[in-house]
Amino acid sequence: MASKGNILLSVSGFDPGIWRSELEKMAPDRAVVEEPSGPGDPAITYAVVWKQRPGVLNGLPNLKAVFSIGAGVDHIFAEGDVPNVPIVRVVADDLTERMSEFVVWQVLDHHRKGPLYRRQQAQRIWHEDLMQPSAREVTVGILGYGTLGRDAASKLRMLGFRVVGWSRTQKQDQGVETFAGEDGLPRFLGQSDIVVCLLPLTPATRGILAAPMFDRMKKRGPLGAPILINAGRGALQNEADILAALEDRRLGAASLDVFETEPLPIDSPLWTHPGVTITPHAAATSVPAALIPPMIAQMDAHDAGAPLTNLVDREAGY
Amino acid sequence: MASKGNILLSVSGFDPGIWRSELEKMAPDRAVVEEPSGPGDPAITYAVVWKQRPGVLNGLPNLKAVFSIGAGVDHIFAEGDVPNVPIVRVVADDLTERMSEFVVWQVLDHHRKGPLYRRQQAQRIWHEDLMQPSAREVTVGILGYGTLGRDAASKLRMLGFRVVGWSRTQKQDQGVETFAGEDGLPRFLGQSDIVVCLLPLTPATRGILAAPMFDRMKKRGPLGAPILINAGRGALQNEADILAALEDRRLGAASLDVFETEPLPIDSPLWTHPGVTITPHAAATSVPAALIPPMIAQMDAHDAGAPLTNLVDREAGY
Repeated sequence: MASKGNILLSVSGFDPGIWRSELEKMAPDRAVVEEPSGPGDPAITYAVVWKQRPGVLNGLPNLKAVFSIGAGVDHIFAEGDVPNVPIVRVVADDLTERMSEFVVWQVLDHHRKGPLYRRQQAQRIWHEDLMQPSAREVTVGILGYGTLGRDAASKLRMLGFRVVGWSRTQKQDQGVETFAGEDGLPRFLGQSDIVVCLLPLTPATRGILAAPMFDRMKKRGPLGAPILINAGRGALQNEADILAALEDRRLGAASLDVFETEPLPIDSPLWTHPGVTITPHAAATSVPAALIPPMIAQMDAHDAGAPLTNLVDREAGY
Repeated sequence: MASKGNILLSVSGFDPGIWRSELEKMAPDRAVVEEPSGPGDPAITYAVVWKQRPGVLNGLPNLKAVFSIGAGVDHIFAEGDVPNVPIVRVVADDLTERMSEFVVWQVLDHHRKGPLYRRQQAQRIWHEDLMQPSAREVTVGILGYGTLGRDAASKLRMLGFRVVGWSRTQKQDQGVETFAGEDGLPRFLGQSDIVVCLLPLTPATRGILAAPMFDRMKKRGPLGAPILINAGRGALQNEADILAALEDRRLGAASLDVFETEPLPIDSPLWTHPGVTITPHAAATSVPAALIPPMIAQMDAHDAGAPLTNLVDREAGY
C-alpha cells in the first residue's frame, strides 16, 4: 500500500536497520529506499538523513524536504551540495528531555563536588566540603538558547540555579537574563559559574570554545574557577586550548560529550586529565521510536498542504 | 538588649561558633548560652540542639520548646530523657533544596550510567550504552514522603521520571502514586527501579534497609537490578545486607550518604566496592544563615502567642 511518495533513508556511521523498520512501521503507505532507483528518481518525495552519502540528495525532481535525525544539522551541509529544499530539524520531547537530563546531571555533578568525593572515596577519606554553596548562589550560563537551552534552563531554575542565556540573536525567556551576539558575550561570561554549550555548529560558532572565550570568563565563583560543559558539537571546541585553560585554572573542570575527532583518539590527553569528564557523544541519543512519528506526521501534513515547521535557516546554518 | 529569654545552644560533633554568632546576630534581644547558669536556670526559654549534652535540657522551668538544627530529630531522643516540651524540626527551603539536589544528582548519575562511563574513561573506552532508557521509562520510589520526599518527587517528575511514594501513614500528592504501611510496601518495592530513602530514624524504621526489603524489590528494570540511595540515617541500613545484595544482584548499585558508624571506618568494604558511591554525610548541610532566621521567627511568634509549627510527634519519634 505504498501509495504516497517514497522516503530516501541515507545515514552513515551506524546501522540504518532500526530507522528503516521504524519508518516502515509508522508509514506503511510510503516505501523506504536507501538509494534512488536511478538518476532523477521521481518517486522520492522526502529524505531522512544523518551524514547522507555525498550527492545522494541531488537531482531528485520531486524531493520536498530533508529531515535530520539528530538535533544538529551541520552533518547535512558537511556532505557537500544540498538541494534547495526545506531542511527540517528534529524537535521531539524525547530528544529535548534526554539533553536536559545530561545537562542537569553534569551541572549537579560539578555543583555537588562529584569529582572531589569520588577521589576521596578512592582514598578512603571522610571529609565533607563545607564550602558547598546552595544552587541559588550558582549561575549557569547556557550558550545557545534554542529549544534545548530553554528546556535545560527551566529545569535548572527549578532546582534553584540562576540561569543566564546567550544566543546569536536576542531571545526572551521569563526569569532568565539573556544576552546576544558578540556584544553580549562578555557580560554573559563574566557571571557564569558553569557554562553549558548547546550551540549549533555553523561557520560562526566553529572553534568558539577556545582561549579568547576562556580569557573572558569569570575568574572565581562559589565553585572556584568556571566549569565548561559541551554537549553541542566537537568542532565548537579547541581541545588544546581547553587543556591549557585547565592547567592555568582559567577553567576549573570540563565535561565533554563531543570531540574534535570522534571516537576520541586513544592518545588524547583528555582521557586522563583529572579535570575532564568524558562521555562518548551520549548526551542525547536519537531514538527512532520517539523521533520517527513526528517526522511522518509532518510529511503527511505537508502533503495535505500544511507548512513545515522547525525549518533550518540555511544562511545561518542551523 | 537581651530582654527576651535566653537561648541554650547545645551541640556536639562540631564547633558551635558559627551557630552562636548567627543566633546572636539574628536575635540581639536574646542571650545565647551553652550551659545553664545552674540547676533550674529560669532564664532559658528555648533550646537549639544537635546531639545535646545528655541531661542538659532537664530541670529548666521556663523551657518552652527545643529546636533541632538538622532535618532529623533522632539525635535529640538518643541523648536520654527529653523534657516534655514541644520539639520543633527544622523546615527550611535551603535544607529541602539541598536534599533534593542530592537526590536528583544521584538518581541522574545512576540513570545516565555515571559509574559505567567513568570506568570506561579510566580505560580509554569509547562506547555509548545504547540501552539508555528515557526518564519516562524509569520509576523512582521515595521511602519517606514528608517535606523532603515531596520536594524531591516534584523535581524528579519535572525531569520526566515516574515517582511513587511510601510512608508510614497514607499521604496524598497529585500525580504520585503513594503507598503506606507494611501492607503498601510490596507494591511500592515491586515497581521501583531506584529506591530513595529519606525516612526518619525511629524504632519502627531502624534497620529497615536490609535483606527482607531487598528480597521484595523489583528483579530487573530498564536500569537492571534496582538501585538504593540512602540520604536518611545510617542506622536505617544494614551494611552487611547491602553488600550481600550487591553481590547477588538483588541490588545493582548503592549511593550511601549515611552509615551505621560515621565517619565510615577505614576498613569498611563499602569504600572500595565498585557498586557503592560514598558521600560523607554531605547530602544536605545545615547552614546557620539559612536555618536560624526561621527559628528566631518561630520563637518571637510563639512568645507573642502563636502556635509552634513543624512539631515532632513524640510517639512516632519524628
